[in-house]
Amino acid sequence: MRAYKDYFRKDIQSMTGYTPGEQPKMERLIKLNTNENPYPPSPKVFEAARSLDCERLRRYPDPLADHLCSAIAELNGCSREQVMAANGSDDVFTIFFRAFVDANHPAAALEPTYSLYKVLAAAQGAKVMPIPLNPEDFSLPEDLAGFTRGANVCIFARPNAPTGNTYDKEIIRRFAENFDGIVMVDEAYADFAADNCMDLALSMPNVLVSRTSSKSYSLAGLRFGYVVGNARLIHGMLKLKDSYNLDRIAQTLAEAAVRDVEYRKSVVAKVLAGRAKLTADLKALGFRVIDSAANFVFAAPPDDDGEKYFRALRDHAIIVRYFPGAVTGKFVRITVGTPEEMRIFIETTQAIYRK
Amino acid sequence: MRAYKDYFRKDIQSMTGYTPGEQPKMERLIKLNTNENPYPPSPKVFEAARSLDCERLRRYPDPLADHLCSAIAELNGCSREQVMAANGSDDVFTIFFRAFVDANHPAAALEPTYSLYKVLAAAQGAKVMPIPLNPEDFSLPEDLAGFTRGANVCIFARPNAPTGNTYDKEIIRRFAENFDGIVMVDEAYADFAADNCMDLALSMPNVLVSRTSSKSYSLAGLRFGYVVGNARLIHGMLKLKDSYNLDRIAQTLAEAAVRDVEYRKSVVAKVLAGRAKLTADLKALGFRVIDSAANFVFAAPPDDDGEKYFRALRDHAIIVRYFPGAVTGKFVRITVGTPEEMRIFIETTQAIYRK
Repeated sequence: MRAYKDYFRKDIQSMTGYTPGEQPKMERLIKLNTNENPYPPSPKVFEAARSLDCERLRRYPDPLADHLCSAIAELNGCSREQVMAANGSDDVFTIFFRAFVDANHPAAALEPTYSLYKVLAAAQGAKVMPIPLNPEDFSLPEDLAGFTRGANVCIFARPNAPTGNTYDKEIIRRFAENFDGIVMVDEAYADFAADNCMDLALSMPNVLVSRTSSKSYSLAGLRFGYVVGNARLIHGMLKLKDSYNLDRIAQTLAEAAVRDVEYRKSVVAKVLAGRAKLTADLKALGFRVIDSAANFVFAAPPDDDGEKYFRALRDHAIIVRYFPGAVTGKFVRITVGTPEEMRIFIETTQAIYRK
Repeated sequence: MRAYKDYFRKDIQSMTGYTPGEQPKMERLIKLNTNENPYPPSPKVFEAARSLDCERLRRYPDPLADHLCSAIAELNGCSREQVMAANGSDDVFTIFFRAFVDANHPAAALEPTYSLYKVLAAAQGAKVMPIPLNPEDFSLPEDLAGFTRGANVCIFARPNAPTGNTYDKEIIRRFAENFDGIVMVDEAYADFAADNCMDLALSMPNVLVSRTSSKSYSLAGLRFGYVVGNARLIHGMLKLKDSYNLDRIAQTLAEAAVRDVEYRKSVVAKVLAGRAKLTADLKALGFRVIDSAANFVFAAPPDDDGEKYFRALRDHAIIVRYFPGAVTGKFVRITVGTPEEMRIFIETTQAIYRK
């Protein structure tokens, strides 16, 4: 019998996979680590689930998710040809990197930002050129063009993760006008922000905007995201999409969610109220809180020891997310939960720093 | 405003996407073109769907689909570490090509076979080296080693599509023992065949076996497939998997289906009876029918004009699949349907060739 030998491509041998936030099996925890929505999905989703016809599962789904994409196009005031639906926005990013990034076509992204981008670049044998954010408030550096020179794509998470802040949209517009490549704006958290870049994606030939149902739609468990932009960019990315990337049930439930704009607005309003109170409460305890435009806050305890705080919360069955590093390690990222969860969270935090 | 410019990687610019079989919107058709199962999914799937808790959709799914993978491991008598679950077996193949194939690591595959492999290779900037099947009966050529020299992976669809035939498993075993690369056995149709290569995947360091729920499980609409093999191969491919590639609902319903072995066997038995009758009926009409080990037959009409037959069936609201080409163009691929569908299909075929 022959022995095991490593036949992987070198890029794959040397890369490390993405580590998702912990999904603990214990149900008693207060889980504030992966920016899920504390409120349930739209009643229309429950309704659609109740009327599912499992007999139809024997048939392949619509490969282009036409009904769902029409709903997305209506929502954003664009044409069906400017939309690609995907199995979560991670599926969008995987396709995006396969389409535009390799050893000769590097990517650029904020530092820090969503760590998946680096993993997807590594799989393509490419590096991500860092655009270093100001370590005090995570604002953009002046010389964006300098940090992105030679890149084929530049990804802006806006609002950014894990920092939660946003930045002037005009900067993105001006950057895209002058950038010789594709600008991807990752708007996973845009429903919690004051503005978004959808109009740039619909008017500029080199801007794409991605969205997800995992946050404002309370559908992290369903896996649904989409990307909007120039029809030629969409057409090219569709070549890389798994033919049937979105199953029948996901298409049906996602469409129900997309069409229920009012419910989403009401949930977002509750999260924004929770975010305002959480921010104020943490500041009152001496925390440094980055101004958030998302459904979480990035906050540094008075002693700037994020890891210690993370561990202390864990001992009290509260899970937040900690990102090691000279800058990020001072902070933890806290998802906005229900008022009751936030009450326990703040009381626990008070107890930790009272010692 | 700047003009559109093509920023795609050259491989992507020049490639053509996969064309899935038509999913017509008309419901009155007899649809025999994409090898869906004519019988409904297991009653356990319906039961699982009825007890879905949509509130839980606000949470991310288990990234490694532990419960589902345990069910798959039990089914196949292997360990959890030898299994990766995916969003359909197309997701398995996408990950597989990204892991093992590029311009310097070519793939080899049967000719003709499942056309997706070529698309995935093209996206990696790689060619697929063809292993030409005997045009009479689609049996394997003698010199497998010769046709695959220098390839980093070799994919065997077994049973093959669109031809439906299978071939001696010992040939695969001996080939894998001597091949300096990875052997992927695509077993989408193996539940309809007399044997499969799962024991090779579990005993040899360079053999992977992929399975899908789209055929024998009647779950094409759910998107669920998996791959089994050496834990080190699985570990490497997991680096490329989207963290949450399988949604909560798909994990739950797929597990229900995987655990209902008896139901699947009963459905497969009905399909095999239908296949036997379809084969005999077509032969009685003078068709050349390739011995099928799948849930479809590949059959050439008396005049060897597959396209004419395909179009004539379509005029009678029956859709089969036609693959243009000097060899495949003589045939059409016909999915085994219900007895009633097969009765209409054979009567229509009789009428077409009576003219």
